Amino acid sequence: MTPPTPTDLNPGLSADELRDIWMILSAEERVDGFRLLPRTDAEDFFFELAAHDQAQLLVALPSHERRSWLRLLPPDDAVDLLQEAPAEERERLLALFDEPSRKEVNALLAYAEDEAGGLMNPRFARLRPDATVDEAIGYLRRQARGRIETIYYVYVLDEQQRLLGVVSFRELFSMDPTQSIRDIMHTDIISVRDDEHQETVSRVISQHGLQAVPVIDAERRMKGIVTLDDIVDVVQEEATEDIQKVGGMEALGAPYLNVAFGSMLKKRAGWLSALLLGEMLTATAMAFFEDEIARAVVLALFVPLIISSGGNSGSQASTLVIRAMALEEVRLRDLWRVARRELGAGLALGMILGALGFLRIVIWQAFTPTYGEHYMLLALTVFASLLGVVTFGTMTGSLLPFVLRRLGFDPASASAPFVATLVDVTGLVIYFTVASLLLRGTLL
Amino acid sequence: MTPPTPTDLNPGLSADELRDIWMILSAEERVDGFRLLPRTDAEDFFFELAAHDQAQLLVALPSHERRSWLRLLPPDDAVDLLQEAPAEERERLLALFDEPSRKEVNALLAYAEDEAGGLMNPRFARLRPDATVDEAIGYLRRQARGRIETIYYVYVLDEQQRLLGVVSFRELFSMDPTQSIRDIMHTDIISVRDDEHQETVSRVISQHGLQAVPVIDAERRMKGIVTLDDIVDVVQEEATEDIQKVGGMEALGAPYLNVAFGSMLKKRAGWLSALLLGEMLTATAMAFFEDEIARAVVLALFVPLIISSGGNSGSQASTLVIRAMALEEVRLRDLWRVARRELGAGLALGMILGALGFLRIVIWQAFTPTYGEHYMLLALTVFASLLGVVTFGTMTGSLLPFVLRRLGFDPASASAPFVATLVDVTGLVIYFTVASLLLRGTLL
Repeated sequence: MTPPTPTDLNPGLSADELRDIWMILSAEERVDGFRLLPRTDAEDFFFELAAHDQAQLLVALPSHERRSWLRLLPPDDAVDLLQEAPAEERERLLALFDEPSRKEVNALLAYAEDEAGGLMNPRFARLRPDATVDEAIGYLRRQARGRIETIYYVYVLDEQQRLLGVVSFRELFSMDPTQSIRDIMHTDIISVRDDEHQETVSRVISQHGLQAVPVIDAERRMKGIVTLDDIVDVVQEEATEDIQKVGGMEALGAPYLNVAFGSMLKKRAGWLSALLLGEMLTATAMAFFEDEIARAVVLALFVPLIISSGGNSGSQASTLVIRAMALEEVRLRDLWRVARRELGAGLALGMILGALGFLRIVIWQAFTPTYGEHYMLLALTVFASLLGVVTFGTMTGSLLPFVLRRLGFDPASASAPFVATLVDVTGLVIYFTVASLLLRGTLL
Repeated sequence: MTPPTPTDLNPGLSADELRDIWMILSAEERVDGFRLLPRTDAEDFFFELAAHDQAQLLVALPSHERRSWLRLLPPDDAVDLLQEAPAEERERLLALFDEPSRKEVNALLAYAEDEAGGLMNPRFARLRPDATVDEAIGYLRRQARGRIETIYYVYVLDEQQRLLGVVSFRELFSMDPTQSIRDIMHTDIISVRDDEHQETVSRVISQHGLQAVPVIDAERRMKGIVTLDDIVDVVQEEATEDIQKVGGMEALGAPYLNVAFGSMLKKRAGWLSALLLGEMLTATAMAFFEDEIARAVVLALFVPLIISSGGNSGSQASTLVIRAMALEEVRLRDLWRVARRELGAGLALGMILGALGFLRIVIWQAFTPTYGEHYMLLALTVFASLLGVVTFGTMTGSLLPFVLRRLGFDPASASAPFVATLVDVTGLVIYFTVASLLLRGTLL
C-alpha cells in the first residue's frame, strides 16, 4: 500500500489517512489536510496529536481560528502546547484564553515540565465534608457537565482548600444516599508535593494502583491531580531517556524525526568526542607495549577480540543494573548483593568465553598452522586474558551505575560505550601483562 | 538509616517497613511479617505486591488461609498470580475459586500473557441499548456494589454479547435522565481483538487517550476490557525488554534480583558467545594485515581507538532508531529519510572525530616524538579512517534495525554490542586499506 501523496489532499483525507501520512507532510500540507476534516473528526484529531504537533498546527492556522482550538484543551494540555510553541508566539496565544483559564495556565507555567505541578490538571471534582452522598452525586452531576475532565475520585476539601479525604466515584455510587461524606471518606490519603519529580509521581501511582493522585503545595492546599494517562507518557519518556543514554548520547527530548539536525548532532557529538578522548588512552597503553608487539606481532591479532569482549560483558552488566535501578528493583544499599552476584556471573562468563577463545586457536592451528610452535601458550594467554577481562568488565559495568548514583549523577550515564571505553584500556593492560608472564622466554 | 534486620520482625512491622525490607527477606520471614499486619493493611499490601511475590507468599501460607486471599483478587490479577506459581501448585490453587470465578480464570488462562486476552479484566459494566439514562444509573449502582472493578466506560451489548456502543460514565452522569442509551451511545468504537499483542493494545489506548479499551473475539463478542493501569505495566515491561536487548542480552523477563543465577547466566552467555564468535573475524582480518603490522608496528597502536569509534557511533545510531521504532515515530517506509539523515550525521560526526584523532597525533608528536618522521601521513591515515569508520558505523547502526524488522525479527536485537561487532571487522579493513594507500613507500 503506497501512502497517498500530498496532491491527493484536495478531495479531503479521512482522519485516519491524515494521521497515517502526518509525519511526512509539510506544515502547510498539515494545515490544509486538517482544515478539510469535518469538525468532530478534527476535534478528535487535534486531541490525539502530540503537544509539539498541536503547537505547530495552531501557529500555522489563521489567527481567528486559533482561539477555539486552544480553548478546547484542558489547562494541563494547553500548557504543554504553549511550552512547545515558539517563544515569540507564546504571549499571543496566552491572550486567547478567557480570564479564569489564563490564570490557571499561568499558574501551571510556573512549574517545570517534569515535576508534579507541571503534569497536573487543576480541574478536579471537589466536595465539602458535610454533604450527603445524594447531595454529592447531584453536585457532581453539575460539575460533570462543566469543566471537570476526570471524576474517578472526588476530593473532600476544607475552606482553606486543604485536603481532608478522598472518595472514589465507585464508592460514592454504591453507598447509602443519606450517609455523610465525612463518614465514608478515606483520610489516609496518598498525595504528592507539587515540586516532586515526575518519576516519583509515576512510581507512587503505579505502586499503589491508583487512577489519580492529588497534588498539594507546601501548605497542604490541593492544587490539582495527576492522572494515569499522564503517567503512561511519563513512563515512555523516562524509558526513552534511559535507553538513549545507555546507547551513549544525551537524551534527545523529542521524537527522532522532529529534532533539528544540528541539535541532534550536538547531543551525539559530545559523548562521542568524550569517548574518543578516553579511547586515546588505548593508544598510549598500546605504545607502552610496542616492544612486545614488535617481537610477537601475533599478539596484536587478538587485541580487538579481547577488548571487545570486556566491553560487551560490561555493557550487559551496566544495562541490567541501570534498568533495575530505574524500576527500583535495586537500590544503593543492594551494592554488595549485586557485586557478589556479578562477580560470580563475570567469572562464569569469563570461563565460557575464555574456553571458546582457547578452542578457536587450538582448532584453527590444527587446520592452518598460523600461530607457530607456541600456539598452546598463546591459547592459554587468550584464555586467561578473556577470563580476566570479562570478569573485570562485568564488575565495572555493574558497579559504575552505583558510583554514578552515589555521586548524584544519573546511573543511566553508565552507557554501553562509556563502560566499553573504560574497560578497553584495562583490557589491554591485562592482556599484555598475562602475555609477558606466560610467553616470557618463548615468544617474548 | 539501617534497615531493620529480620529479628526485628517479632513485634510486627508496619506495612511500609515491611515493604522497605521485602526484597532482602527469606520466604519464611515474608510470611511471618505479612501475617503480623492488621487485616486491612495486609489487604492493601497484598494488592500492591507484584504477581511473582503474591504467588510466592500465597504458596507459603497455610492452606486454609490461601482461599480468602486468592478470592480477593480480580480475575486478571488472579491469572497473573497463577502463571507465576509453581506448576504443581496451580491446580490446587484453581480449586480454591468458586465455580463462576474458576470459569473466568480458566478462560483467561487460555490466552498468552502478552496478548490482549491475557491482560483483560472480564468484569466490566454492561447495559442493553433500550434502557434510559436513569435506569442505567440505577442498574450501574447495583453493579458497582458487586464485582465490577472499573466503571469508567459502560458498554452497550446486544443479546449475542456483541458490542453496539459505549458511553463514558461522565456522559451518562451529565445527560438528561429520560434519554435512551441508544440515543447517546457512541457507535464509532475503538476496540482490540483478543489475540492482539500487548504493545499494540498499549499504543491504541495511549494514541486515543482512552481510559480503557474493549476486547472482542473473532465473532465481535465482547470478552473484557484492558484498562490504563494494565498499560502502565506493559509500557514498563516492553521498555525493559528493549533496554536489555540494546545492552546485548536476552530479555530477563523478571526483576534482576529475582531471576535465578543459572537462568540469568544463560540469557547473558548466549549473546556474549555469539558476539565472541563474530569478533573472531577480527583476528582473521588482523592476520590478513599481519605483514603491514610487522613493518609498521605503530599502526597497531590505533586499532582499538579506530574500531571502538565505529562501534560507539554505530550503537548510538541503532539505539536512536530502535527506540523511535518502538514508539512508532519511525516506520519501515521511513528507511530513506533515516538513511539520508544518518549519512549526514555520520559524515559530520566522522569529520569531528577524525579531526580530534588528527590533532591528537600532531600535538603529541610536538611534545614527544613517538610517531617518527612520517607522523603527518600517519595523522592523515587516522583522520581518513575515523571519517570512514564512523560514517560506516552510523549507517550500519541506523539501518540494521530496519533490516531486522523487515526480516521479521525484533529491531531491538540490533544491540550496541552486536553493531559494534559488525563494525569492528569492517573498521579494521577500512583502516588498513587507508593505511596501505597513504603510507605505501614510506612506512609500508
